[in-house]
Amino acid sequence: MPKKIVIDCDPGLDDAVALLLAHGSPEIELLAVTTVMGNQTLEKVTRNARIVATIAGMTGVPIAAGHARPLVRTLEVAEAIHGVTGMDGPTVPEPAVPLDPRHGVDLIIETIMREEPGTVTLVPTAALTNIAMAVRREPRIVERVREVVFMGGSLSGGNWTPAAEFNVATDPEAAHIVFHEDWPVTMISLDVTHDALATDDVRERIAAIGTGPARFVTEVLDFYAERYREFHGFGAPPVHDPVAVARVIDPTIVTTRNAPIDVELGGRLTTGATVVDVRRPAPPDCRTQIGIGLDAKRFWNLIIDALERIGDVPTAQPVAAH
Amino acid sequence: MPKKIVIDCDPGLDDAVALLLAHGSPEIELLAVTTVMGNQTLEKVTRNARIVATIAGMTGVPIAAGHARPLVRTLEVAEAIHGVTGMDGPTVPEPAVPLDPRHGVDLIIETIMREEPGTVTLVPTAALTNIAMAVRREPRIVERVREVVFMGGSLSGGNWTPAAEFNVATDPEAAHIVFHEDWPVTMISLDVTHDALATDDVRERIAAIGTGPARFVTEVLDFYAERYREFHGFGAPPVHDPVAVARVIDPTIVTTRNAPIDVELGGRLTTGATVVDVRRPAPPDCRTQIGIGLDAKRFWNLIIDALERIGDVPTAQPVAAH
Amino acid sequence: MPKKIVIDCDPGLDDAVALLLAHGSPEIELLAVTTVMGNQTLEKVTRNARIVATIAGMTGVPIAAGHARPLVRTLEVAEAIHGVTGMDGPTVPEPAVPLDPRHGVDLIIETIMREEPGTVTLVPTAALTNIAMAVRREPRIVERVREVVFMGGSLSGGNWTPAAEFNVATDPEAAHIVFHEDWPVTMISLDVTHDALATDDVRERIAAIGTGPARFVTEVLDFYAERYREFHGFGAPPVHDPVAVARVIDPTIVTTRNAPIDVELGGRLTTGATVVDVRRPAPPDCRTQIGIGLDAKRFWNLIIDALERIGDVPTAQPVAAH
Amino acid sequence: MPKKIVIDCDPGLDDAVALLLAHGSPEIELLAVTTVMGNQTLEKVTRNARIVATIAGMTGVPIAAGHARPLVRTLEVAEAIHGVTGMDGPTVPEPAVPLDPRHGVDLIIETIMREEPGTVTLVPTAALTNIAMAVRREPRIVERVREVVFMGGSLSGGNWTPAAEFNVATDPEAAHIVFHEDWPVTMISLDVTHDALATDDVRERIAAIGTGPARFVTEVLDFYAERYREFHGFGAPPVHDPVAVARVIDPTIVTTRNAPIDVELGGRLTTGATVVDVRRPAPPDCRTQIGIGLDAKRFWNLIIDALERIGDVPTAQPVAAH
Repeated sequence: MPKKIVIDCDPGLDDAVALLLAHGSPEIELLAVTTVMGNQTLEKVTRNARIVATIAGMTGVPIAAGHARPLVRTLEVAEAIHGVTGMDGPTVPEPAVPLDPRHGVDLIIETIMREEPGTVTLVPTAALTNIAMAVRREPRIVERVREVVFMGGSLSGGNWTPAAEFNVATDPEAAHIVFHEDWPVTMISLDVTHDALATDDVRERIAAIGTGPARFVTEVLDFYAERYREFHGFGAPPVHDPVAVARVIDPTIVTTRNAPIDVELGGRLTTGATVVDVRRPAPPDCRTQIGIGLDAKRFWNLIIDALERIGDVPTAQPVAAH
Repeated sequence: MPKKIVIDCDPGLDDAVALLLAHGSPEIELLAVTTVMGNQTLEKVTRNARIVATIAGMTGVPIAAGHARPLVRTLEVAEAIHGVTGMDGPTVPEPAVPLDPRHGVDLIIETIMREEPGTVTLVPTAALTNIAMAVRREPRIVERVREVVFMGGSLSGGNWTPAAEFNVATDPEAAHIVFHEDWPVTMISLDVTHDALATDDVRERIAAIGTGPARFVTEVLDFYAERYREFHGFGAPPVHDPVAVARVIDPTIVTTRNAPIDVELGGRLTTGATVVDVRRPAPPDCRTQIGIGLDAKRFWNLIIDALERIGDVPTAQPVAAH
Repeated sequence: MPKKIVIDCDPGLDDAVALLLAHGSPEIELLAVTTVMGNQTLEKVTRNARIVATIAGMTGVPIAAGHARPLVRTLEVAEAIHGVTGMDGPTVPEPAVPLDPRHGVDLIIETIMREEPGTVTLVPTAALTNIAMAVRREPRIVERVREVVFMGGSLSGGNWTPAAEFNVATDPEAAHIVFHEDWPVTMISLDVTHDALATDDVRERIAAIGTGPARFVTEVLDFYAERYREFHGFGAPPVHDPVAVARVIDPTIVTTRNAPIDVELGGRLTTGATVVDVRRPAPPDCRTQIGIGLDAKRFWNLIIDALERIGDVPTAQPVAAH
Repeated sequence: MPKKIVIDCDPGLDDAVALLLAHGSPEIELLAVTTVMGNQTLEKVTRNARIVATIAGMTGVPIAAGHARPLVRTLEVAEAIHGVTGMDGPTVPEPAVPLDPRHGVDLIIETIMREEPGTVTLVPTAALTNIAMAVRREPRIVERVREVVFMGGSLSGGNWTPAAEFNVATDPEAAHIVFHEDWPVTMISLDVTHDALATDDVRERIAAIGTGPARFVTEVLDFYAERYREFHGFGAPPVHDPVAVARVIDPTIVTTRNAPIDVELGGRLTTGATVVDVRRPAPPDCRTQIGIGLDAKRFWNLIIDALERIGDVPTAQPVAAH
């Protein structure tokens, strides 16, 4: 039986790949997609989510817009990496998939409350604003959610500030809320995603698929590679977000260990840093875990399999790159 | 020509090994030893420094006591690891080496100001209180010191709090002072010292030397191994402090990279965390560097060589363990 | 034309007086009452709001429950002052006024969006969780609200911590959100409410009214006086919350000055402190103001007038004190 | 018997008045003057201290320079108030009083250790760097000092940041050290010194004295008045520092109450704020107190008396204003 998930995202180049991976994997039933500001403004990332759904032929999955700003902090978008549109690089069609009129937070809550308890996994690949607001608005979702598999955080230095990863840094208070609720949380941090590198070899394999969606991913990764080369000096770009989806598809792809996780809200240098206690084995009641290892080969195989399964999607008409 | 160093320490089991390594290495001229509270109270660690000097036959090196408490914070000693005496475990003699009457901070300043500019390396293996007070008291030492090679800090989680390493956590303000002065600082952090493991094999090699000082080190490491097993679940204990000395003896034993280093003073969870910016290559004027790799085999060879060179020291009469 | 207000409260002894003042004043049209955890749990303060409405004969005003916990922090109720029920002291009836089924945040939003822009004043006399969540959920309320008149904060030390007033300390992040939105905020801080003392003379005048609601207020104030005597050493208790309502009824009762207001979220000692910049005159675009003086005599006259106007309410059947 | 004091200062216009008050008061025996950076650089304020001594004919009192920078923070001088020289405004002579060669911290320590225990009062009217360093260097001064009477801090908002007074803000860690030592501390905060206003009437009375030192003070106050008018919108300037000296001369001039005092080191908005717990009566062992009221009339009388007692000082040759 496929695993039911809700993806909360801010596409975002790597978010786009995460959506395609979820859509093309038979192990996943994608119940809903919600968007939140982050890599770009809410308006832009929501449009991008609809574009990705159009490219992938992902109809029937409601897409709803959530929060347009962090709880407390001021939004700083990641334009240097994801560009002015939030998904610069590929040539994309106009979005043909409609926007669900509900608030993203309500879509999250209604989806969880409608499904059987213990069946829905939340997969946030962006700032945790929507998830935090959902749990404050409807605390009963905590005991109904199967697990939260979050792409974000870091044990060993950040990518947005020296100490903080972008998704947590964007809304540290929201992250604090999510990590302190009484549900299982798996944190897929930079320590793991920095092994999910889109090497030349990987990109060639994807390009070789030859379908429209694969072409889109190739263009995404080429642009992404260029940004990471320029801004971080990486030889190949880490494709963070799909690792969280991959973990749901096949838990053995990301090895984990239990460890208490907290979020710094008050430091001068460390606001938004995730603080993971690895000084000793976790206490028995610890319900948070961190990714510590990635089987990168099987990870990329999952993505390639998903793209092959999606195949060509006739309705998506490419327009000029924005 | 041997390198002139001042060791500022809080013996402390691993500090003891660091002192022996410095004393037994021909590449090192140990100009002075100063003590500072930390692993235990100032009184205890100062007594321990004199005991180690007695065991090693280290006469002619002035040993002076420095600060008895951190600048701002309250002292918490590491009794769980180093025991009631600060050097529990080995059977030790009464200290036969005298205490220099000067304040440790003055000994540091006078030593640096007396020697040729650019010749003295400071090797703190404890909280940085003495070094910080020396530089505030006599700012001219900054341009006269060759380098500060500090054992402490961490890039990926602490050993005293989830985020902070013990030496920095003990006096974060002092660490802030030292890292912000305009001298070269090499940080030998937990990320490196956690590879300096006193495995069974290492301990057997040391035991096989058969001298009094080697017996002392064996007993130190056996006790230390037991503490780390009990409190951290380590299979073999990381012997932190001598790595800083080893770096001075042979810089190729610890590979490093330049990176800006700062110290968090204000977080709820992260006070005392060292924040290292590894997001991109360091700016050209960066004068701080971090250890990133240890050649553990050559590290232990250095220690064994030093112990063999020290040989037996007839005057040290073991008394009952405390 | 009466001023339309929504009271967001956590009754709470002084909240009860605020509700009665609003209900009994012809200058006020009370559109809605929402509740939020604070002085006691959400369940208890919501029950208390309904009890007060019952005592006052306040029918037709929707009462809805809002948030049960602060955004980020852990709830600590003010049981030492307001007692186990949150309104210990008076003998009260069972609540006969129904609970509105909507979430308090939705009631706030719907009320503001329904009324003419610029006509609704929000009067929070509790932690600002509901108001903050309303503005994050529906940002358009900012430009529709006439003003926020908030009882809380302090310029000169707190009552819950040495630096922070209770309502702000209970949810500092919510206060930060509210103070940083682009609407007019008037802060009725402890500096003003500490002049709203329920002296013996005041309590005698209220007791002399002789109606049920006045008897209720007398019992409230007697209990409150006892608590403040015991815990703070006050000769007469400061009745904080109705000062905010009084400011709306007659702005001349509380003199104010413009000043930038911010909320400390990160200090070790000062989390929840309101930081008001009174170093120099406020900039012209400053839209926050602080109360700086209270005409206590006219304040108490307003309360007495309101109680006289309310008169006796036949349906409220006192039951045993809880 | 006169009270023995050491003044630690950063002249600074109001520091100059404090020095004259001490020098001209028979109730005071001024043992030493030490300087610390603050209103201007160490070099400038030390020169100013010697100029004031020259103007006042204050020979025989050692003047020594202390610390040139705060413990942890970066120095920001108060040039907007005190000018480029740190004592802009008056026409002053070249300093004819020599500089004591000792470090200011050593002069403080030696003076205290030399005098009878319990006889020396420290009167810091600047950042507490020297005092903090003295107590860390020689902890025994704590039990030998009679009292620390410090001009600085605030209960109700700062003058340097919205929350922090200048002397504490300049070196918050030093203030934290001083307030946490086990000696009696009286804090003469802005709440009191803002009543020490140099009104036109006061300035006329001082001008009428007609001596050189009085002329100097008149010029100081005229310039100071202009600065406060321009930067803070004050009608008359608060002359902070001499209030601490006045408190030593006649304790009844400043009424006080006991209250715990702490210093915020970690807030985003509140670093350097003094946090005073006035929520309830102080615990019996509280050894810190705050000024709460000033008898301004008697305060100014003290200053005028001191100036009259000093009279004319023939040796001070005015030179051009700097």
